[in-house]
Amino acid sequence: MAEKPPQPTMDTIVSLCRRRGFVFPSSEIYGGLGSTFDYGHYGVLLKTNIRNQWLRAMVQERDDMVALDSAIILNPRVWEASGHVAGFNDPLVDCRTCKLRFRADKLDDAACGRKPSKRPGETPDCDLTDSRQFNLMFETHVGALQDGSSSAYLRPETAQGIFINFKNVLQIARRKPPFGIAQTGKSFRNEITPGNFLFRVREFEQMEMEFFVPPDDAPRWHEYWIAERLAWYRGLGLRDENLRVREHDEQERSHYSSATSDIEYRYPIGWQELEGVANRGSYDLTQHTDHSGTKLEYVGPDGERYTPHVIEPAVSIERIFVALLVDAYDEEVVAERKRVVLRLHPLVAPVKAAILPLVPRDEGMASRARTLYEELRRHHVVEHDDSGQIGRRYRRQDEIGTPWAFTIDEQTLEDETVTVRDRDSLAQERLPISGVREWLDEALQQDSPSPRSR
Amino acid sequence: MAEKPPQPTMDTIVSLCRRRGFVFPSSEIYGGLGSTFDYGHYGVLLKTNIRNQWLRAMVQERDDMVALDSAIILNPRVWEASGHVAGFNDPLVDCRTCKLRFRADKLDDAACGRKPSKRPGETPDCDLTDSRQFNLMFETHVGALQDGSSSAYLRPETAQGIFINFKNVLQIARRKPPFGIAQTGKSFRNEITPGNFLFRVREFEQMEMEFFVPPDDAPRWHEYWIAERLAWYRGLGLRDENLRVREHDEQERSHYSSATSDIEYRYPIGWQELEGVANRGSYDLTQHTDHSGTKLEYVGPDGERYTPHVIEPAVSIERIFVALLVDAYDEEVVAERKRVVLRLHPLVAPVKAAILPLVPRDEGMASRARTLYEELRRHHVVEHDDSGQIGRRYRRQDEIGTPWAFTIDEQTLEDETVTVRDRDSLAQERLPISGVREWLDEALQQDSPSPRSR
Repeated sequence: MAEKPPQPTMDTIVSLCRRRGFVFPSSEIYGGLGSTFDYGHYGVLLKTNIRNQWLRAMVQERDDMVALDSAIILNPRVWEASGHVAGFNDPLVDCRTCKLRFRADKLDDAACGRKPSKRPGETPDCDLTDSRQFNLMFETHVGALQDGSSSAYLRPETAQGIFINFKNVLQIARRKPPFGIAQTGKSFRNEITPGNFLFRVREFEQMEMEFFVPPDDAPRWHEYWIAERLAWYRGLGLRDENLRVREHDEQERSHYSSATSDIEYRYPIGWQELEGVANRGSYDLTQHTDHSGTKLEYVGPDGERYTPHVIEPAVSIERIFVALLVDAYDEEVVAERKRVVLRLHPLVAPVKAAILPLVPRDEGMASRARTLYEELRRHHVVEHDDSGQIGRRYRRQDEIGTPWAFTIDEQTLEDETVTVRDRDSLAQERLPISGVREWLDEALQQDSPSPRSR
Repeated sequence: MAEKPPQPTMDTIVSLCRRRGFVFPSSEIYGGLGSTFDYGHYGVLLKTNIRNQWLRAMVQERDDMVALDSAIILNPRVWEASGHVAGFNDPLVDCRTCKLRFRADKLDDAACGRKPSKRPGETPDCDLTDSRQFNLMFETHVGALQDGSSSAYLRPETAQGIFINFKNVLQIARRKPPFGIAQTGKSFRNEITPGNFLFRVREFEQMEMEFFVPPDDAPRWHEYWIAERLAWYRGLGLRDENLRVREHDEQERSHYSSATSDIEYRYPIGWQELEGVANRGSYDLTQHTDHSGTKLEYVGPDGERYTPHVIEPAVSIERIFVALLVDAYDEEVVAERKRVVLRLHPLVAPVKAAILPLVPRDEGMASRARTLYEELRRHHVVEHDDSGQIGRRYRRQDEIGTPWAFTIDEQTLEDETVTVRDRDSLAQERLPISGVREWLDEALQQDSPSPRSR
C-alpha cells in the first residue's frame, strides 16, 4: 500500500474556505442557521465545474443518456408511492434537561449538551425521552389549491422525479433499455444531526442517474457503473489511496436496494460515503405503476415486455467539493516561506489562469496585461491581479488552485513574450504573448479525460 | 416600425415543448400539480445555455463582479428584515360556490369556476369571501433545533442572500463600489393564480445581480444596466420589435424601489415583464443593518463611509426560455412540405450540430459518422442520428433548433468530405471531414457576442 500523505484537518479546510471566500456560514449576521452554508465566488466556480464535468461525462459524451430537471415540489403522492412518507425516518430522542436532540441510533457518537465528554444518557442529569420516528422530509403547504391548502414536500432525492418521467423519456426520446436519465439539483433533508462542514447538510445538490436495464443484465451493469464512477473520480485527480469501494451488508441496505456499493473517500473524519451505487431493482417503477395506475414498463417491437431494473449512481456536489479540497490541499516551504497550494485538477480549478503585470504602474506592462486578460476571459475563467508584490500575488493564486500564471515583465516590452508559471512545479518558461490563448486552450484540452469505452 | 412577424400562440409552444421533450407537466402520472413542470433533455440543455450565457456576460467577462450561491432556506429573520414576512402578500378571495381562489386585485382577468365566460362576482351563484392578505412565501419547519421545530421559509427571491453576504464579499473579495454580486438559483412563490405555461410558476430559477454603487451614481448606473441588459437580449437574437423598456409608475413600484424599469417582451399573451431593473436605493442594506446590528456600509481608505445604493437586474430563466422559443419559432413550406424550425441563436441552441450518415447500413458511412460524432462530442453537445430517411432527420433537428447538420454520404467515401447544412438558409456546402471540428469551433466563436464596453 502506498504511503498515505498527511491529510489536512477539516478545520484547516473550513478555514481556507472561509479565508478565500469559497464557503461562508449562511445568515451569519443573524447568528447563522445550523449547518447551512453560502458559497462565495470560488465556491460557485468549483461547484459549477464539478456539475459540468459530471454532466459532460454522464450525458454529453454518451449516447445512452438523456438529461432531466424535475420540480423540487412534486405531487405528494409521489412520496407515498416511493415509501418516503411512511419510511423515510430517523429515530429521535430529546433530552428534557439540555434540550438537545439526538439520533437514537447514533447516541454513541453524540455528546451530552452539559457534559460534552459524556454521551447522552451517561450523566445523571440526562432525561431522555423515548425514541420516536422523525420524518426527514421538509413539509410545506401549497396554498392556492381549490380545497384549501395542501401538504407537499421538498424532495429528499431527485431520483423520484426521474422515475415518474420514465414513460415520457421512453416515448419522446425514443429510448430502449439500456439507457439512463441524469439529473442534478437541490434536495432537502431535515437532518436531526447535521454537521462536519458540508458533509451532512439540510440542503444539498444531488447528481443522480437512473440507468434502466433488462432485469437479467442488472448485476453486470451494477459492476460497470461502480468501475465507471471510480474512474471518473480518478480522472478528476483524486488519489487512489483515498478511494475505496465498500459493499453494503444486508442490514445497511435501503428498503429498495438489492445491492449497494459505496465509493468511499478517506475524509479527515474517516472513510465515508462519497457516492452510492445502488441496484434498485424494479422497486420504484413497480411502486409508481401500482400507485398511479400507469404502467411503467418497456414494451419491445416484438411485444416483449418487462419492468426494467435500475442502477443508480448518486452523489452530492458537496461531498465531491470537500473531497477535492482535502485531496488537493498541500503546504510546503518554498524559498524559506510556507505556501499553501491547492493542487486541483485544471478541469475543476475555479480559475484557470492569472494574468499579472509585474510592475502595474508601468503603462506598457499594464496595457499588455489588460489586453491579454480581456482576450482570455472570453473563453475561460481567468483573473487579472495588479495589487501587491508579485510573490504575494502568486501565493494568492496558489491558495485557490490556479494552475497557471502569465506574467508580463520587462522582457515582454522588448520581445513580446510572457512567462508562464506552473502552480505545482513552480517551473517558469517563456512563450509569445500572441500564443498564450492557444497554449492555454491546449493545456486544458490535454487534461480532458478521454471518452470512456463502452 | 418594422412589420411584426406573426407569432406562434402559447399553445403552439406548449405543444412543441411537449412533443420534443423540452418540458413536461410535472407529476403527470399522478394528475399533475398545478402549473408545475419538469424539463426534459432539450429543456435542460436550453436552460443550461441561458444560465451559462448569463454567468459569462455578468461574471466571467467583467472584473467588477463576483458570483454567490446562497442557501434556499435562510435564517427566518432575513425575511423579517427584508419586509417579506409583513408585506409579501397578495389579496385573496375565495368563492364558496365554485371553491376557486382568485387574486382580489385581478378579478377582471379571472374566470368564474362555473361560467368561465363571466368573471367572479358576475353570476348570481358566486359567493365571494372578503378579501384577505395571503403571504406568498412557502413556510416549512426546520425540525431538529433545540427548542422544537422552527418556522422557516423557502426564499421568494435570491437577492436577500446577496445582501446578507455584502460584508463577506467586501472584505474577502477585496471589493469597493461600484461592484456587483451575481447569483442564479431556485426561488419559490406560492402564487394564487399561476399560469400561462412557464410564465408564472411556483418554483422558478432566478438570475439576479445586485450592483453596489456610491449613492450619487445610482441613477447613472440604473440607465447603464437597462441598456446593458437590453443589449444582452439582442445579442441572444431576440428581435427588436419584440423588446421594449417600460418605466414603472409610482403605484406599481415595490416598497423598496425608487425607480424600476421593465424590459418587456411581446409574449403571445401580450407585452409582459421579461426582466426588471430596479433601483433599490439603500433600502435592503439599511434594513439588514437595523435588524442584525451589523453595519453594512462601505468604509474607504480615507475614512469616507456610506451605505451603497443598489441597482438590480432580475430575471427568471423560465421567462427567457419562453421568449427565446416564441422568438425563434417559425413555420415554412420547403419543397411542398411544411417544416417547423426554431431559429435559435447557436449559443443557446440545445444541440450545436447533428452528425448524419446518409445510408446508415453502409459500413463506411456509419463508421465515419461515428468517429466524427465521438470527436465532436468531447467539445460540444452534438447528436448522432441514423434512424429514418434523411429528410425526416433534418426536420427533427430543425424542430429543436440545431444550427448545423453534417452529413456523411457517398462522396465522403471517395474524397473524405462531408456536407454541412445550414438550418436557416438550407444552404449546403462541402468541407473536409478532418476540418469539421475547427469549422464548428469557429462558427460558434463567431457568434459569441463581443465583450461589452465599460
